[in-house]
Amino acid sequence: MTKKKIGRSAQLRATKFRAKKVGLPPGALIYVGEQKIERPVISFFDYDPGKLEARQDVSLDACLELKSSSTVSWINLDGIHDIALLEKFGQGFELHPLALEDILNTQHRPKLEEFEGYSLIIMKMLEFDEAREEITAEQVSMVLTPHCVLTFQERPGDVFDGLRERLQRSNGRIRQRGTDYLVYGLIDSIVDSYFHVLEKLGDRLALLEERLITEPDQDCQHRIHHFKRELLNLRKLVWPLREVISQLYSGDAQLVEETTAIYLRDLYDHVIQVLDTVELYRDTVSGLLDLYLSSISYRMNEVMQVLTIMASLFIPLTFIAGIYGMNFENMPELKLSWGYPAVWGVMLACVAGMLIYFKRKKWF
Amino acid sequence: MTKKKIGRSAQLRATKFRAKKVGLPPGALIYVGEQKIERPVISFFDYDPGKLEARQDVSLDACLELKSSSTVSWINLDGIHDIALLEKFGQGFELHPLALEDILNTQHRPKLEEFEGYSLIIMKMLEFDEAREEITAEQVSMVLTPHCVLTFQERPGDVFDGLRERLQRSNGRIRQRGTDYLVYGLIDSIVDSYFHVLEKLGDRLALLEERLITEPDQDCQHRIHHFKRELLNLRKLVWPLREVISQLYSGDAQLVEETTAIYLRDLYDHVIQVLDTVELYRDTVSGLLDLYLSSISYRMNEVMQVLTIMASLFIPLTFIAGIYGMNFENMPELKLSWGYPAVWGVMLACVAGMLIYFKRKKWF
Amino acid sequence: MTKKKIGRSAQLRATKFRAKKVGLPPGALIYVGEQKIERPVISFFDYDPGKLEARQDVSLDACLELKSSSTVSWINLDGIHDIALLEKFGQGFELHPLALEDILNTQHRPKLEEFEGYSLIIMKMLEFDEAREEITAEQVSMVLTPHCVLTFQERPGDVFDGLRERLQRSNGRIRQRGTDYLVYGLIDSIVDSYFHVLEKLGDRLALLEERLITEPDQDCQHRIHHFKRELLNLRKLVWPLREVISQLYSGDAQLVEETTAIYLRDLYDHVIQVLDTVELYRDTVSGLLDLYLSSISYRMNEVMQVLTIMASLFIPLTFIAGIYGMNFENMPELKLSWGYPAVWGVMLACVAGMLIYFKRKKWF
Amino acid sequence: MTKKKIGRSAQLRATKFRAKKVGLPPGALIYVGEQKIERPVISFFDYDPGKLEARQDVSLDACLELKSSSTVSWINLDGIHDIALLEKFGQGFELHPLALEDILNTQHRPKLEEFEGYSLIIMKMLEFDEAREEITAEQVSMVLTPHCVLTFQERPGDVFDGLRERLQRSNGRIRQRGTDYLVYGLIDSIVDSYFHVLEKLGDRLALLEERLITEPDQDCQHRIHHFKRELLNLRKLVWPLREVISQLYSGDAQLVEETTAIYLRDLYDHVIQVLDTVELYRDTVSGLLDLYLSSISYRMNEVMQVLTIMASLFIPLTFIAGIYGMNFENMPELKLSWGYPAVWGVMLACVAGMLIYFKRKKWF
Amino acid sequence: MTKKKIGRSAQLRATKFRAKKVGLPPGALIYVGEQKIERPVISFFDYDPGKLEARQDVSLDACLELKSSSTVSWINLDGIHDIALLEKFGQGFELHPLALEDILNTQHRPKLEEFEGYSLIIMKMLEFDEAREEITAEQVSMVLTPHCVLTFQERPGDVFDGLRERLQRSNGRIRQRGTDYLVYGLIDSIVDSYFHVLEKLGDRLALLEERLITEPDQDCQHRIHHFKRELLNLRKLVWPLREVISQLYSGDAQLVEETTAIYLRDLYDHVIQVLDTVELYRDTVSGLLDLYLSSISYRMNEVMQVLTIMASLFIPLTFIAGIYGMNFENMPELKLSWGYPAVWGVMLACVAGMLIYFKRKKWF
Repeated sequence: MTKKKIGRSAQLRATKFRAKKVGLPPGALIYVGEQKIERPVISFFDYDPGKLEARQDVSLDACLELKSSSTVSWINLDGIHDIALLEKFGQGFELHPLALEDILNTQHRPKLEEFEGYSLIIMKMLEFDEAREEITAEQVSMVLTPHCVLTFQERPGDVFDGLRERLQRSNGRIRQRGTDYLVYGLIDSIVDSYFHVLEKLGDRLALLEERLITEPDQDCQHRIHHFKRELLNLRKLVWPLREVISQLYSGDAQLVEETTAIYLRDLYDHVIQVLDTVELYRDTVSGLLDLYLSSISYRMNEVMQVLTIMASLFIPLTFIAGIYGMNFENMPELKLSWGYPAVWGVMLACVAGMLIYFKRKKWF
Repeated sequence: MTKKKIGRSAQLRATKFRAKKVGLPPGALIYVGEQKIERPVISFFDYDPGKLEARQDVSLDACLELKSSSTVSWINLDGIHDIALLEKFGQGFELHPLALEDILNTQHRPKLEEFEGYSLIIMKMLEFDEAREEITAEQVSMVLTPHCVLTFQERPGDVFDGLRERLQRSNGRIRQRGTDYLVYGLIDSIVDSYFHVLEKLGDRLALLEERLITEPDQDCQHRIHHFKRELLNLRKLVWPLREVISQLYSGDAQLVEETTAIYLRDLYDHVIQVLDTVELYRDTVSGLLDLYLSSISYRMNEVMQVLTIMASLFIPLTFIAGIYGMNFENMPELKLSWGYPAVWGVMLACVAGMLIYFKRKKWF
Repeated sequence: MTKKKIGRSAQLRATKFRAKKVGLPPGALIYVGEQKIERPVISFFDYDPGKLEARQDVSLDACLELKSSSTVSWINLDGIHDIALLEKFGQGFELHPLALEDILNTQHRPKLEEFEGYSLIIMKMLEFDEAREEITAEQVSMVLTPHCVLTFQERPGDVFDGLRERLQRSNGRIRQRGTDYLVYGLIDSIVDSYFHVLEKLGDRLALLEERLITEPDQDCQHRIHHFKRELLNLRKLVWPLREVISQLYSGDAQLVEETTAIYLRDLYDHVIQVLDTVELYRDTVSGLLDLYLSSISYRMNEVMQVLTIMASLFIPLTFIAGIYGMNFENMPELKLSWGYPAVWGVMLACVAGMLIYFKRKKWF
Repeated sequence: MTKKKIGRSAQLRATKFRAKKVGLPPGALIYVGEQKIERPVISFFDYDPGKLEARQDVSLDACLELKSSSTVSWINLDGIHDIALLEKFGQGFELHPLALEDILNTQHRPKLEEFEGYSLIIMKMLEFDEAREEITAEQVSMVLTPHCVLTFQERPGDVFDGLRERLQRSNGRIRQRGTDYLVYGLIDSIVDSYFHVLEKLGDRLALLEERLITEPDQDCQHRIHHFKRELLNLRKLVWPLREVISQLYSGDAQLVEETTAIYLRDLYDHVIQVLDTVELYRDTVSGLLDLYLSSISYRMNEVMQVLTIMASLFIPLTFIAGIYGMNFENMPELKLSWGYPAVWGVMLACVAGMLIYFKRKKWF
Repeated sequence: MTKKKIGRSAQLRATKFRAKKVGLPPGALIYVGEQKIERPVISFFDYDPGKLEARQDVSLDACLELKSSSTVSWINLDGIHDIALLEKFGQGFELHPLALEDILNTQHRPKLEEFEGYSLIIMKMLEFDEAREEITAEQVSMVLTPHCVLTFQERPGDVFDGLRERLQRSNGRIRQRGTDYLVYGLIDSIVDSYFHVLEKLGDRLALLEERLITEPDQDCQHRIHHFKRELLNLRKLVWPLREVISQLYSGDAQLVEETTAIYLRDLYDHVIQVLDTVELYRDTVSGLLDLYLSSISYRMNEVMQVLTIMASLFIPLTFIAGIYGMNFENMPELKLSWGYPAVWGVMLACVAGMLIYFKRKKWF
């Protein structure tokens, strides 16, 4: 039952935490999520085709130096609950208060927002929690400037390790390109991880379907309900991404070049594929509910038939036996020597008649 | 049961009160709501970056003086049932009769209407009545002119207290800006309060879901029905807001400046988030109905199985007992000394057979 | 049952009567409705700001004189089955044969059709027949020319009495304006009357809901079915009005001036409100069906539980009693002096066991 | 049951016969329908305002002479299975191979295709087969050239007799106009016949509804299923017509003049009315299914209540009787002279108790 | 049950195999399908109106020579798992890495992608596996260059044999035209084969429907569920084709000439027909589910009626018999000589009463 509780609160969190903000001026910085790590950690990659510098746990000032260098810098912040630090980030990189507010509001829908000189991209990193069978989301905000990409994550641990490895290799395409290609690489990593989540979800649905066919019980029904909600949630998180990416490659984003746009167009196809699969799963889940309900109906039918056959066979017989169990003094049949076998004969005839009737009705 | 009654009338009020107006010329002023307070109360805030004047319960004439001053004035009227007063407002601020009619018709959908020199914005302030578990709406009409913002409310008490506090502080952004930013602040307060309503509604849905899983009864069904209707109603009230705000920031509204538009764009995202959550809740409620129905079916199945098992086990046995309760004179079995134990044997064999059969059918 | 019959034919009338026309050339005039009054009656209002002339039951020639006068004339014809008269109307006011055909075809959807020099507007006047609980529609066709408005109704009695009163008053806005404002006034009267119909329908739905909660029976189900159909029908009649009015105010209609357009825009909001309410009612009715079905299920569950409890309690007891009703000579228990009380003991133990079992299952 | 079979094949025919063509080059002429008449028959009408010539069963060559004459010619071919003849048609009138292929493929959707110098219009002529209660479709292809209209039908017998009569009359509007008006006349005749089909279908639905309310049985369910499919099919056949006619009057068709467009616009309204009615019928049928299902549920409830009342009343009584049918030697009650009446008293008390209980539950 | 398993994995394969790619750079070549044949085989057709050369199992180099010749070449590769070979293809024909990635990713949606100098078209070749009653898809990728058409298939065996035959014939239209017409021919062959799949699917649905009407059992329900999923899958595979073909003929594809566009427009109609049929089948399947569920309900009703009739008839009789089976000493009725026949009379009266009651309820 705890599982249900958690699934529920995940859905309601969005409204819960926004409510904290009521009455504050717009652009006021307040962190609406849970504090997920103890200390925020800044790390960066600074590279051009020739050289690469990667550093962990640096100070903000070290990052600000990268701001105007001609190399490409990827500055990552794990842990966004430290509002003072974030404000310094904002001042250092000249971010609009609304941009910072969006980064802090971890319940935001995915979106692309253009500001003067930079773009803000908000996305969700999804994971499938195998124990609870539910999808957990972490918000990743990216700021794309001409020379820097800033990423803000709620906690350490992400899906960018493959990308980091590729950065290390000097011959990768990513080292030849600018910040727009880096952002593409980040988004691509996130979208690729969605396929992982879908695969695991698909496995669970397949197991559930198998169980439904062999032995439908009430737990199946709760799981159907649970997956239905998870898929609703998943769709809500992925759907706006379509628009975000199409805006990125169609020229709305000021800093994306034509050579990167072709990759984003390809990525768009992947997002569509994710959404297609989510829709397919939703139809599958609703099909599972139909299957469950009709199984229940069918089973009830079977149960009723057994009851009806048993009752219809024996109730008349019991009545006949009851007749000759009466104690009337004047019951001539009781004295007949062939009375008892005759009653047996009548009973067998009854049974045979009922059986023929049920056979015709195809009840067994 | 009273709860149901109230929920219902809330829905039908819209048509009830409009019907009062049939036969009157358009622009005729008639208040279609209930009279919610005794005496209408006017108050205002008049400010510029340097100074602020806030007054309660003033006369209309005091307000009219603010009309042409270069400061920003926010004039608020609590209680709109006094038509004579409203007509004077109309004359004083040169409002079109149709604008006044819209303000008085408290069943209006949210909308933005452009008039010459001013804009009329109609919105709904929502509250969740915890006792009745239903959403109550109060209409707020705003008139945005170059130097004044007029707000009309049905009764005292609103969600603008946070805004008023911010106005008192001399360093707030709101003191630096014009009437368009003030209107933004008002709408923002209202939209923020929607999250409160959603949060409370979400809590109730969570409780209902828990109860449905543990013990589904007929009251659950009535509550599902009730929440379904509340959500329908809520969507009807919030949905048009999308268009209102998008018109405001996209340049349709003459008096909204570009610097304010960026805030309105952000607000638009919040409205979308409210609507997403409403849709999610609607899907949740319809999922709850499925859950309820399949629980009922499942439970019926269980009941039927118990009945069938009991009947199938004992009906044949009762029949056998009935046989040897007959009073035929010629029943040789009755005389056998092992007849009675043999009958017990046959009965036990019957029971064993049935149990094996039910076991195979997985009925228990 | 007669109610159902009538409801049905109302729906099928549209196709029934059109079928009469098959094989005729387009523009051929044939009246497809029932003949609703004996004699067509023409009446007119002729006015300008200074004077007003209102006449009942005049000849067509009297009307034709008004055609080119500079005053505004509203000529109304009650009863359109007299085709010869209508043809004379057509010749007198130079109407296109297709326009006349549309006026005669009382099954037309609401529409606006622009002809050279005049516009044809087709609308439905609705009434709620309280006895049959159904909506009846009467077609009103309006021809808007620069100096005249012609209205064609199927029978006397309409919703324009309020308008007529306002025309009588010399100071009304309607007397200052042209034919376009008169047409607006007519449409406004019709739309206002829709709210009346909705209010009555809403009351019936509320009653039905109350009854469903207290005692759902099969009549409820028939009424749900009935209201569903009425709402389908209603939506079909009102939906096209949206487009008609938006065409009128958006400049498609040649004779509508800008000063009238603002009123039409307001009217458009009212039509949207009507449609919103119709949709809300449709959702309500479908919710009522769910409520009915789940009530039936719930009730069946209850019935089954009672049956199962009764049967499970008594069937085993009856079996035990049957055992000791057997007539075997060798049944040692029968001879025991404590046999009878012991059997009672066993029976009570059985009952207690079953009751505990049912208690745990929460069956009572 | 045969009815079902036929209904089914009608739906699958589309795919069945197209499959014949797999592997053939595009434009290859092959007739995919059944051969519906023995010998194709050509007939024509040739007219201008002054004269009319109508001939039956002529040769193709006679028709080709009409091609370049300035009169309007309507050449009709009944029976399109003779591919050689059709190819000659194609050569004679310079039709594109794809146009001929579309004419032969009798499973085509309604469409308008523009070729150089002529337009191809494909439509469906519908009939309601009263015996099988199903809609049968015949494809009519029309080729509109500046001086000729060619029509191709699968078999003799059509809905154009009214049109032919009008052509005979010298004073009809149709004699004054060109080929575009003739095509309008043809399409108008077809659309008018749809109302006939709808009327008959509506009557059947009304009968079915009546039967559902009085005695819902399994045949009703099969008929609901049947009509649902017929309506699906009907919609599929009529829906594309909307676009065809709107293309015709909006200037996409090169040969349609402005004076004819106004008639086509009117026709468009009729098609919309047909589609509205189809949608209404679909909603009606789905409402009938709800009605059927809830009737079944309600009836089951009633049956269960009777069973439960009977069982609950008599099972305890039978148990009591069973008690005193036991043969224990030591049963003091049996010796009491008032034992027997006392048992009757207990039984009556039981019955009374149960009846009060059921009364409270409103079970009867 | 194995059937279900396979159906499921087919759906989940899409996500399964993409997940392999997570962490790789975009454009990295990795084959995500199963290895379907041992050795990739290249074959080509090289033709102009005058001559034709067809060769099987050639080397890549032989193909590269055809690249710049003025004849039309169709180069086909069966088996795409050999990545090295594919990379050479890419270099030889100057294909973009993303194009090669799309060719290798056999889970791609159908799409048209324009690259500089060539177009990439991805389609699905469908087959109906009769044994498993499921649709299997094979991806076909086509690269359209000015002089060559490259096709990539997962395994040997395709639907192009008819096309190959037509190529052999020197007089076919296909030999006169360029690569765009060849691509049209390929797509046409694939779309034609869809009709085959639909025909077979339609036959299965017809069989299923017949079975549902005669004897609905639980296997029917599983098959309904199965076909529902197959149709979902089918729609997902065919739906994007609409856009692909409309892009091809509307001028988006650089290499398609106007003379070929007319054929593609015709093909578009065929795709629409396929989609219409898929939608029709989906509606049919959902209708079958309704039919199944209502059959189950109806049957349950029948079963319950039999049970209720049997129980209601015999339970009271058994009670009466029980009464006179009691052993009270003082039961005067037992001594009456007409007691026994009188009891029979009462019993028959009971039965008659019940039968009249059931008759009135129309239970039999």
